[in-house]
Amino acid sequence: MDERAALALLDRELEPVGDDAAVVDDLVVTTDMLHERTDFPPGTTRYTAGWRAVGASLSDVAAMGAEATAAVAAYAAPEFDPEELLAFVRGASDVCERVGAEYVGGDLDGHEEFTVATTAFGWTDEPLLRSGAQPGDRVCVTGTLGRSAAALTLFERAGEDETPAEEADRALEQANELFRFVPRIEAGLALASRATAAMDSSDGLARSLHQLAEASDCGFAIDSEAIPIDDAVRDVCSKPERALERATTFGEDFELVATVPADAIDDVRAATDVSVTSIGSVVDRRDGITIDGDDLEDRGYTHG
Amino acid sequence: MDERAALALLDRELEPVGDDAAVVDDLVVTTDMLHERTDFPPGTTRYTAGWRAVGASLSDVAAMGAEATAAVAAYAAPEFDPEELLAFVRGASDVCERVGAEYVGGDLDGHEEFTVATTAFGWTDEPLLRSGAQPGDRVCVTGTLGRSAAALTLFERAGEDETPAEEADRALEQANELFRFVPRIEAGLALASRATAAMDSSDGLARSLHQLAEASDCGFAIDSEAIPIDDAVRDVCSKPERALERATTFGEDFELVATVPADAIDDVRAATDVSVTSIGSVVDRRDGITIDGDDLEDRGYTHG
Repeated sequence: MDERAALALLDRELEPVGDDAAVVDDLVVTTDMLHERTDFPPGTTRYTAGWRAVGASLSDVAAMGAEATAAVAAYAAPEFDPEELLAFVRGASDVCERVGAEYVGGDLDGHEEFTVATTAFGWTDEPLLRSGAQPGDRVCVTGTLGRSAAALTLFERAGEDETPAEEADRALEQANELFRFVPRIEAGLALASRATAAMDSSDGLARSLHQLAEASDCGFAIDSEAIPIDDAVRDVCSKPERALERATTFGEDFELVATVPADAIDDVRAATDVSVTSIGSVVDRRDGITIDGDDLEDRGYTHG
Repeated sequence: MDERAALALLDRELEPVGDDAAVVDDLVVTTDMLHERTDFPPGTTRYTAGWRAVGASLSDVAAMGAEATAAVAAYAAPEFDPEELLAFVRGASDVCERVGAEYVGGDLDGHEEFTVATTAFGWTDEPLLRSGAQPGDRVCVTGTLGRSAAALTLFERAGEDETPAEEADRALEQANELFRFVPRIEAGLALASRATAAMDSSDGLARSLHQLAEASDCGFAIDSEAIPIDDAVRDVCSKPERALERATTFGEDFELVATVPADAIDDVRAATDVSVTSIGSVVDRRDGITIDGDDLEDRGYTHG
């Protein structure tokens, strides 16, 4: 059974189902585990790892339209190098500070592979769910897509023998910077009372749309030209189609994908500094999920 | 740097320091990572693993004198066997239910080694800390000590070639039962307004006393005969001294160790169904930490 099938099984067993985080009373809680082999390419600094791991959980809090309160992390590694550990903690603390949350520490564990489990908390009295999208709503995404895809290419390039040392250093620095996304707490709060449905784009835009469609029983008509493709992914892809494909399916960008009634979009934009781009509209379920009129496949990143 | 040194380093970097859980406003939060090689001996069922992993975090909530609200877990394994996964979730849900908390799910991750990261949270407006013990207070422990030490012996016995199959089955069943401890939430609430300091005994009684002594700047005089040694560890140890040593240093029992003013002990006992045993008294720091008048070494389980 792969991870998606296993998650579906758990959804049937457990309440609440499907959303980016669980809600207990007004407390939003979410947990994630990341590890070296699949989540932190060679060249990822521990500072970036701390930022990104905790950021991934904060992104789930953002997707619920909640305020971020705090986060914890369990850090597992073969050995505890003081500098690495402190860099990790600084990254974790900094991403929390960036969104007004508090990093309150965690646990250490000896483990063969560098592994991080993070949990973030937030508050909302009206959680934003994946269900609720209505035909006629606009589909919006925050920020830009493709940053993590670009970062991965840069990490790979830096690791190649033929890359000159100076270029490799620059690539690593840029890749680390791209990896340190800002969790969309502020945008999530702007969407909270106005969007009809939302989730984060951690599995890629295509997969997110399929998940929203299933939860909301709707379809989507997406306009590829409207998708906010990050410059970084355009830079690393030789062809524009490739950049679009990476931005649409690679995922790991931790932007928000939300459905918003057309007359509420201006209010959302006024309430956040982050760009909110309309990329298409919600349609009837029987009209499917399309991009420029063609079927948009349910293809993306299955987290390992 | 070993885990204790790394934790000490983190303590200096992060607030709040040292206690079993962090407190943000009135929210108590704690996270732990456990994995197969060091925490789940061969023969541990996934039901037991789910119970125990989530229970370990709930125990930290108990040590803060807090009500338990909810828990999440990230489950990582080389493959997702549906039966194992459901058994794990049932164990996690059952231990939550046992203490009035809600299990609200978590994350799945592909990983070479079976690894679980759990986070529990609870509420208290007056957290019970490790600091606060006063000379003259009694030292109390909840329940009995040595259950996990006994379980480990039984798991080992079950795995030996010369053990007859029927006996191995019985040993495994008993070991799993011993491993499924009840987090001391109820006792923690009974202690909350009455104890001067508390922590859980996950690293063993000896180490817990050293940690309480450091946080409270006090010493302890322990009476070995008063220590509530579990029958199970007496059964598996040939000599009584060995049972005492296992009960005192093995740890992983997740009982509470608390200091209580002598005149408050009856009230604590009246407020919980769990046994609360007085095993000695708080003394001045310069009188050290002794058992029957001899130094009690800071020896115990360092979690891998």
